[in-house]
Amino acid sequence: MKKIFIIGAGLSSSHLINYLKKESEANQWKITVGDASIENAKNKCNGHKNCKAISFDINNKELREQEIKNADIIVSLLPPTLHIKVATDCVKYGKHMVTASYVSPAMAALHKKAEKANILLLNEMGLDPGIDHLSAMQMMDQIRKKGGEITSFRSYCGGLVAKKFDTNPWHYKFTWNPKNVVIAGQSAAKYKHNHHVSYVSASRIFSETEVIEKEFDAYLNRDSISYIKPYGLENAKTVVRGTLRIKGFCDAWNVLVQLGITDDTYIVEQSGLTIKEYILSFLPKDCKSLKAYIVDHLKYTKNIDKIYKQLLYLGFESETEKITISDTPANILLSILKDKWKLEKGEHDRIIMIHYVDYILNGKKQSAKAILDVEGESQQLTAMSKTVGLPMGIAVKLILTNQIKARGVHIPITEEFYTPVLKELKAHGVAFKE
Amino acid sequence: MKKIFIIGAGLSSSHLINYLKKESEANQWKITVGDASIENAKNKCNGHKNCKAISFDINNKELREQEIKNADIIVSLLPPTLHIKVATDCVKYGKHMVTASYVSPAMAALHKKAEKANILLLNEMGLDPGIDHLSAMQMMDQIRKKGGEITSFRSYCGGLVAKKFDTNPWHYKFTWNPKNVVIAGQSAAKYKHNHHVSYVSASRIFSETEVIEKEFDAYLNRDSISYIKPYGLENAKTVVRGTLRIKGFCDAWNVLVQLGITDDTYIVEQSGLTIKEYILSFLPKDCKSLKAYIVDHLKYTKNIDKIYKQLLYLGFESETEKITISDTPANILLSILKDKWKLEKGEHDRIIMIHYVDYILNGKKQSAKAILDVEGESQQLTAMSKTVGLPMGIAVKLILTNQIKARGVHIPITEEFYTPVLKELKAHGVAFKE
Repeated sequence: MKKIFIIGAGLSSSHLINYLKKESEANQWKITVGDASIENAKNKCNGHKNCKAISFDINNKELREQEIKNADIIVSLLPPTLHIKVATDCVKYGKHMVTASYVSPAMAALHKKAEKANILLLNEMGLDPGIDHLSAMQMMDQIRKKGGEITSFRSYCGGLVAKKFDTNPWHYKFTWNPKNVVIAGQSAAKYKHNHHVSYVSASRIFSETEVIEKEFDAYLNRDSISYIKPYGLENAKTVVRGTLRIKGFCDAWNVLVQLGITDDTYIVEQSGLTIKEYILSFLPKDCKSLKAYIVDHLKYTKNIDKIYKQLLYLGFESETEKITISDTPANILLSILKDKWKLEKGEHDRIIMIHYVDYILNGKKQSAKAILDVEGESQQLTAMSKTVGLPMGIAVKLILTNQIKARGVHIPITEEFYTPVLKELKAHGVAFKE
Repeated sequence: MKKIFIIGAGLSSSHLINYLKKESEANQWKITVGDASIENAKNKCNGHKNCKAISFDINNKELREQEIKNADIIVSLLPPTLHIKVATDCVKYGKHMVTASYVSPAMAALHKKAEKANILLLNEMGLDPGIDHLSAMQMMDQIRKKGGEITSFRSYCGGLVAKKFDTNPWHYKFTWNPKNVVIAGQSAAKYKHNHHVSYVSASRIFSETEVIEKEFDAYLNRDSISYIKPYGLENAKTVVRGTLRIKGFCDAWNVLVQLGITDDTYIVEQSGLTIKEYILSFLPKDCKSLKAYIVDHLKYTKNIDKIYKQLLYLGFESETEKITISDTPANILLSILKDKWKLEKGEHDRIIMIHYVDYILNGKKQSAKAILDVEGESQQLTAMSKTVGLPMGIAVKLILTNQIKARGVHIPITEEFYTPVLKELKAHGVAFKE
């Protein structure tokens, strides 16, 4: 009888726990769900006979070691910086681990020890990173097996609101950590273009965007270059990774970035001002209005009325709505957006992932495209929770049933991962269209 | 016989040490100059009978306490973060201290203890901060004594190259820490405008500049708001502090900022590229040339040829000069600028400080202006060293001759400082024209 220990019973754990509960019946697994809030853990177990809820504090060393020693595999849904505590114990007690987070330098440093302990520390096994690795590598390996040589790889992903519930002029609602949305794109980005590494400074991220499938804006992710080595793209001309929003989002968001109201590095003491007064305090002094700023300073020539409507929707000209906190501009913006971009009860989210691969086969230029478009089922069973949680759940099954040979610290970029995981994801309605 | 201990014998100490050596003769003072390099210290003492050079390591607690205990006053020219070690010992042994650095929170926290020990920890006693406090407060107190009410205070300062040696199209050479010049203006700035706190995001600092006296560009300093309280400007409409460059500098520097090549937050692996190739890697991908970037992307309409000439001077179109290091964009830019903006042997620097005060007197709007314009005397005796060092030297004299009553942690904003210090500065050729 194999034992699974899941650490964390937050929003993103629903699909993962449901999947493992179901699989536990045929496989006779026992599941323990640990969370700081035992209520959360109990809700997720929901009385299932193979599932036990416990109160769990990651900093309680004794309890942590005891639960890890007692399990065969650990799924860590903790904040990324805390995985290393779990991973260290997993090495000590010879247990496998699965996370959906990027491999940190500390995690990477455990590779040899994990190999020696004959365990797998599998990371980046969610959506992005996760399904992006699985699907992109399957797509590119198929091309390479036919003898194709990849010249361009572009990959985009976004968490959006389902079309039916897309009811505001930004075509966006918070379906994931709102703070991360507000501070996105505040570092320079690097990508490969024309065989060269190219850089885009932070202040240009939302102005140098692409239109994707006529429907989306894509802005650059921070580091597309780090994908070149694991994906074997050293000879490709182009390597780009980006984030998707519905078309029209980025031009308007760029106004906020240029104004400086997404800055998270200093405190603004403007509590009590109306939103209009607050916005005015960020306008250049020779600028009389928000609209004049867009036209005269940012020199926008297109979609000005549309953008102005988006800003009006946020109350940027409101003489009644007030700023209620003294905090960073980013946190003040978050306080304005929270209600206006709220995913209401009964509304669903949507996940979009798109890969474009150009290649040369038998001397001919060819192109391939794959699109994943998943809609959430309910406020609990979101598309985000499904696409992040299911790959981890499937990985747990594959590892416990000895179908994965990899040992050490890994990310899912090889056939032993992508073939079975993508197959089972498809059976759950998570499938790319090529 | 009073004893002065000067910690640090770097470039900026020449005028300070010369002044104190001279004053020591009439006052029978003994001076000890301590530096990590005893050669530096010896050079500055230059065999003067009252001046002793010692090798000094600030982290050698025993030596530090011994020298501080043995002195009556300590002048710290250490890097700002190290002053606190000296200040703590000064409190312990009841010794006065003078620095040219901003009051850190740790320094401010010593106020009560210093008062109790009956000592003065005098900070911000250089040029900027320093002469700015002295001259601005004298100017404004004179207006207030007449019954005037100040409505606007704007103050600017810059370290430049002397006109005679202004030989490049940027009209700028490094006369102070070059790295600080490259990373200047990378935080949002706040100032008071129309009675309101106004913000300028980091990416807009070099585009929202003012022209001052037809001759200079001024860009905003990070925090003009913190001057409101000490200067008593709560009722003023406008409070602005800025940094001066020769006109035309900021528009061209803004191109570098927008390109992202002043970023100091990540490493670029572009060693071996020509400067032209390196610059191209920061251009938007739909942009074919640097000139097209200025016109089409930044939408510059004025001075384009002039700006392009400034960029050409840095080798931005050079197909022979190469990037030789892998480092942050800011450090790579520094490696390019170092030779091109070098102050050559025999060339002198220049310090400019300008205050503008508007006020209402007897119901009438009035204006006052004061300009300080100091040229360096030699490569050693720079205007920067003079305007930073002399105020500290004069303060030492005033404190040792019991002409200053203030005790605790202070900055020089009261009459007991500004009247005698500005008078003596004038005798040394450092005088404002009103």
